[in-house]
Amino acid sequence: MRIADYIFKRLKEEGVEYTFGIPGDFILPLYAAQERCGMKTVVVTHEPSAGFAADVYARLNGLGVAIVTQGVGALNMVNPIALAYAEESPVIVLAGAPEIHQRDPDALFHHRVKHHETQLRVYREVTASTAVLNDELSAISEIDRVIETTKKLSRPGYIEIPRDMVNVDAPPRCATDHRRVVDNRKILKEALEEIIRKINASRHPIIYAGVEIERFGLMKDLARLVEKLNLPTVTTLLGKSVLPEDHPNFVGNYIGNLSLNPVRDYVGRSDCIISLGSLPIDFGVASAFASYTPNIIQVTSQEVCVGHHCYKDINLSDVMKGLLKTKALKRRSFKPLKKSPVKKKASSPVQKLTMVSIIDELNDFLTKRHIVISDVGDTLFASIELKTDIFIAPAYYASMGFAVPGAVGAQMAMPSRRPVVLVGDGCFQMTGIELATAKKMNLNPIVIIFNNGTFGTLRVMDKEREYLKVHSWDYVGLARSLGGDGTQVDTTQGFKEALRTAGGSSNFYVIDAVLDEDDISSTLGRLAKDFRPRIQSLIQ
Amino acid sequence: MRIADYIFKRLKEEGVEYTFGIPGDFILPLYAAQERCGMKTVVVTHEPSAGFAADVYARLNGLGVAIVTQGVGALNMVNPIALAYAEESPVIVLAGAPEIHQRDPDALFHHRVKHHETQLRVYREVTASTAVLNDELSAISEIDRVIETTKKLSRPGYIEIPRDMVNVDAPPRCATDHRRVVDNRKILKEALEEIIRKINASRHPIIYAGVEIERFGLMKDLARLVEKLNLPTVTTLLGKSVLPEDHPNFVGNYIGNLSLNPVRDYVGRSDCIISLGSLPIDFGVASAFASYTPNIIQVTSQEVCVGHHCYKDINLSDVMKGLLKTKALKRRSFKPLKKSPVKKKASSPVQKLTMVSIIDELNDFLTKRHIVISDVGDTLFASIELKTDIFIAPAYYASMGFAVPGAVGAQMAMPSRRPVVLVGDGCFQMTGIELATAKKMNLNPIVIIFNNGTFGTLRVMDKEREYLKVHSWDYVGLARSLGGDGTQVDTTQGFKEALRTAGGSSNFYVIDAVLDEDDISSTLGRLAKDFRPRIQSLIQ
Repeated sequence: MRIADYIFKRLKEEGVEYTFGIPGDFILPLYAAQERCGMKTVVVTHEPSAGFAADVYARLNGLGVAIVTQGVGALNMVNPIALAYAEESPVIVLAGAPEIHQRDPDALFHHRVKHHETQLRVYREVTASTAVLNDELSAISEIDRVIETTKKLSRPGYIEIPRDMVNVDAPPRCATDHRRVVDNRKILKEALEEIIRKINASRHPIIYAGVEIERFGLMKDLARLVEKLNLPTVTTLLGKSVLPEDHPNFVGNYIGNLSLNPVRDYVGRSDCIISLGSLPIDFGVASAFASYTPNIIQVTSQEVCVGHHCYKDINLSDVMKGLLKTKALKRRSFKPLKKSPVKKKASSPVQKLTMVSIIDELNDFLTKRHIVISDVGDTLFASIELKTDIFIAPAYYASMGFAVPGAVGAQMAMPSRRPVVLVGDGCFQMTGIELATAKKMNLNPIVIIFNNGTFGTLRVMDKEREYLKVHSWDYVGLARSLGGDGTQVDTTQGFKEALRTAGGSSNFYVIDAVLDEDDISSTLGRLAKDFRPRIQSLIQ
Repeated sequence: MRIADYIFKRLKEEGVEYTFGIPGDFILPLYAAQERCGMKTVVVTHEPSAGFAADVYARLNGLGVAIVTQGVGALNMVNPIALAYAEESPVIVLAGAPEIHQRDPDALFHHRVKHHETQLRVYREVTASTAVLNDELSAISEIDRVIETTKKLSRPGYIEIPRDMVNVDAPPRCATDHRRVVDNRKILKEALEEIIRKINASRHPIIYAGVEIERFGLMKDLARLVEKLNLPTVTTLLGKSVLPEDHPNFVGNYIGNLSLNPVRDYVGRSDCIISLGSLPIDFGVASAFASYTPNIIQVTSQEVCVGHHCYKDINLSDVMKGLLKTKALKRRSFKPLKKSPVKKKASSPVQKLTMVSIIDELNDFLTKRHIVISDVGDTLFASIELKTDIFIAPAYYASMGFAVPGAVGAQMAMPSRRPVVLVGDGCFQMTGIELATAKKMNLNPIVIIFNNGTFGTLRVMDKEREYLKVHSWDYVGLARSLGGDGTQVDTTQGFKEALRTAGGSSNFYVIDAVLDEDDISSTLGRLAKDFRPRIQSLIQ
């Protein structure tokens, strides 16, 4: 079988229907092979968008693929792949490369930087596995290895294909798999006994669920576990919606000190936090518990820790299945909280549009037919007051410009759902132009630009500065020039109507939501309180 | 002196008036320090543009600076810095970073990928020097080292500044400079004697000048040398305009087999090619002479080769000054060619717009008050038929999306000149949105979009493919939504008028020049003839 045919056959087996990228001369043969193999592709406008779109496609679909040319293509996609690494999104990068015979150190080719291995070396820093298909004897097992590792770790992999290897016949994989297989049954038994004992001995256990629940396909297991034990459940912001937010046991998003009061109090009272699949990262968007405390049972895809000691060779999936199976766990008597920690504020319809009223109106508008995609900044912080069914955001790595290209990936992965994009004006200016690709592919995201004329998250840490202003654009004019529609609003009533119009439109729709630059979410307010003194102490 | 103050003092001494970038929380203290130190900055919309703008600023100004935040910022700028490396542009990257106390391997911070050194490791692959300012005792000499290396090699340098080091006082540099200083006088004498002998013995010597002439500030020396010896002179495409193209001794751009016939013939007849500052790279855009031949004297910033033997420790500048000084060189009897190897074609004014007529009209329009900036693709290939005074293009590394952000850098560096941007529709879609930054800074580039609805350079290597089409946009509508002006044209007459209107406008102006997708420059036609069979043999 030809190398390219094997690649696309395997990707299709993994459920990949579309790849995302931009052609270039070093990848032309692979593009042609892709077409021949019946793999469909979305050509975006700029490589960073290919990375973001493939990332979101991967989050929703279990695997995503970005296909780019040598140098100018691949090196323009380092940041989105770094994001996928940080946030555990299973993206495969297919990168073009010069012919094998050009691969001596002095070979000359365009798009070359220092060395023919420059690109590989860079990608080693931002992926979990890499392969260069420069030998047909090992090609098949190398492809398998990268795809398997990408899925197993839910972290990006990189496959470089010299353009003269695309159509080379490769023998089937014959090597025995020599990877270490651990019999972890005794470890798992010991860990489960301790975990069960600890949960049963606690008075106020709580489940704290993170993004790995989604990444490792454990959302149904989580819901079953929550219901079996009848425990209150909070989620991280990166893991928002791993438990559907209309679930009766869902309490809110917990992000440490930045959480809304009722949620923070709830977690504060707990004497046993069962952390399932949350990544330990700063400021709580992924996990609020940076260091081990005796009250935490920390279960991730890599290890399981109880208090200060850890078990290796067992993982999130093992533990969750064990907990679902055991009959030793007590069922608790949790009673659902009143719905929504956020009270809807009565507001005059012609009232100036505010963050609060946007969130209120969105909570009325959103249904299970939507996917909410938030970019970085206050749209992300405000989202903790939003009840969502599927929510996607770069909540930890926090790369601006994620959301609009992400919406392209989202709707290609789930055509039955409509993306609702929450994006600040600064973020929109980075990659909002990708709406052109949405139009080309007949997608119809609703894009809400939180237009406050400033990099709001930075401004609250510092002060009024010229370089923290965001230049004003005619976003509606821009949307129209790309074949979409839109409107500018600055009142609650106007926003409500715009949402209704957008909802009824089959085209993509931009809502330019004009906000006061001092109008920030309560969460960003709390973040500012923590971060402002720290940043200010560094500025003179 | 505080570390930040020293950085900006040194950069100002090197003539840097503006930096380019986007703020973020890990770089906020450096942005504040920058403002305090009176260094001005241009906030662009997306980090790739910061890199391109700083690159062009560097090419025109001798040093350029991009200032970006940790991770999401710096990793989004790898490709433009790789370009600067490949094409020898002296750009300094100032990158933010977490506080020193967060720098242990397990430290948690947002924007983190694998390791706190991930970003440094990536930048080592695309820069000539790197420094992390984590020790105030060495900070000053580290800053000096990176700036000096960047200028000396004309290749990018990377300075990472933990945000708690920005305002730390650093003692002045006291270390003695232990770098090896070579007394190269004997080497230079021997090399010059051989070079002079070889030139004098030849019947048809020709000067072949490349981009290093510009990068190392030798343009006036080149003109003097050309005039002293009265030799015919060709330039590379990357080095286009290192000799003003209205100079009587200028013959044309030589790019090997892709050259226009008269130029190719001229070089073909030569028995002594004096190659000054051209980079040896594939397909001739930087140098047509990939391998040494006995007829070439190859002089670069790194070494000097005559035939098959090389001299180390002497460089382009040494040799040129030596050749200017010697009285041993014969003066030749070159007679200027007839002007312009391209004949202006008589055309009916309502004739359908073609590549040829665009170039004709531009040759009428361009003056010494313009800087021509070409993106990648057929705009670049067509440019060899263009007479330019200052010409800038990523002619070797060939990264699409260079030209519009580059124009921002160009006009900030040379406010007295107006950029004329030649850009294909595919390239424009990548970064054309940066016209918003042009508007914000009151710049007024004239942007000519060669709109043929396809990735033309790829299409000539393959065939009609869905993924090689470029989606049609309303470019004029887009320009208007960003506060500029523009028009769409599809006749020669229309294009001429549009140029006139653009020339009279003080705003940025987009000319959407509609071309037939089969209308390619003669140079691209020759390239297709070379490359198409090679690519086709790889496609099945």
